[in-house]
Amino acid sequence: MKQNRRNFLATAATLGAATAASALPFTPAKSKTPLAHHAFFWLKNPDSIEDRDKLVEGVKTLHKIETIREIHVGVVAATEKRDVVDTSWHVSELMFFSDLAGQATYQTHPVHLDFIKNYSHLWAKVVVYDAMEV
Amino acid sequence: MKQNRRNFLATAATLGAATAASALPFTPAKSKTPLAHHAFFWLKNPDSIEDRDKLVEGVKTLHKIETIREIHVGVVAATEKRDVVDTSWHVSELMFFSDLAGQATYQTHPVHLDFIKNYSHLWAKVVVYDAMEV
Repeated sequence: MKQNRRNFLATAATLGAATAASALPFTPAKSKTPLAHHAFFWLKNPDSIEDRDKLVEGVKTLHKIETIREIHVGVVAATEKRDVVDTSWHVSELMFFSDLAGQATYQTHPVHLDFIKNYSHLWAKVVVYDAMEV
Repeated sequence: MKQNRRNFLATAATLGAATAASALPFTPAKSKTPLAHHAFFWLKNPDSIEDRDKLVEGVKTLHKIETIREIHVGVVAATEKRDVVDTSWHVSELMFFSDLAGQATYQTHPVHLDFIKNYSHLWAKVVVYDAMEV
């Protein structure tokens, strides 16, 4: 979040030498939801609009999991074609968690397990990126 | 965002048959920042903490670009090891834009071009995912 840096600088100024930046591996993020979990799904039937919409519907059921602070369900955006942009996937889920424990709870949550049981036949591949804000 | 579904349902109820869901390729997201741009960088020197921190610093300069509504700079999170989780990257940037035009402006913005000029020697590879919320 854009405000984080200002918040951090204010906090750092208050704390002074007690938490010198050089002692830290990263500038700690002050976000309340620093953990981004981004999963990309490739459909078994890549041309099936029906399967894509069904998977979108499935991913949306995950919002019931209480440790998910934000969820964004996506499809490939119509940005300019560039070599570095991967447009081969079909459905994405981007979630924000407050911490690692929140993400771990999500992994074994009954709603998540139901999602896997009911929708995993639709995808051929999934790739996940878990990023901690710095 | 968790609220989007409620907002959408309220809007859909108001609009009634004029925008029947069956006429739309997706449930339109009501987010003000529906476009997520997520870039992952692999360092040329994967073991260099100095290079990683320098790239983090570089990515943070991008927050000055006015069309970026939110920016999250990340490193690999310490979530559980699973085959589907890609932990081979080093630095990530996750940005939200209001629309495709905002992302296009970002691509050619002088601050972005300066970032590429000053920091691209640090990375060996970059992969980008552009997701439109549905």
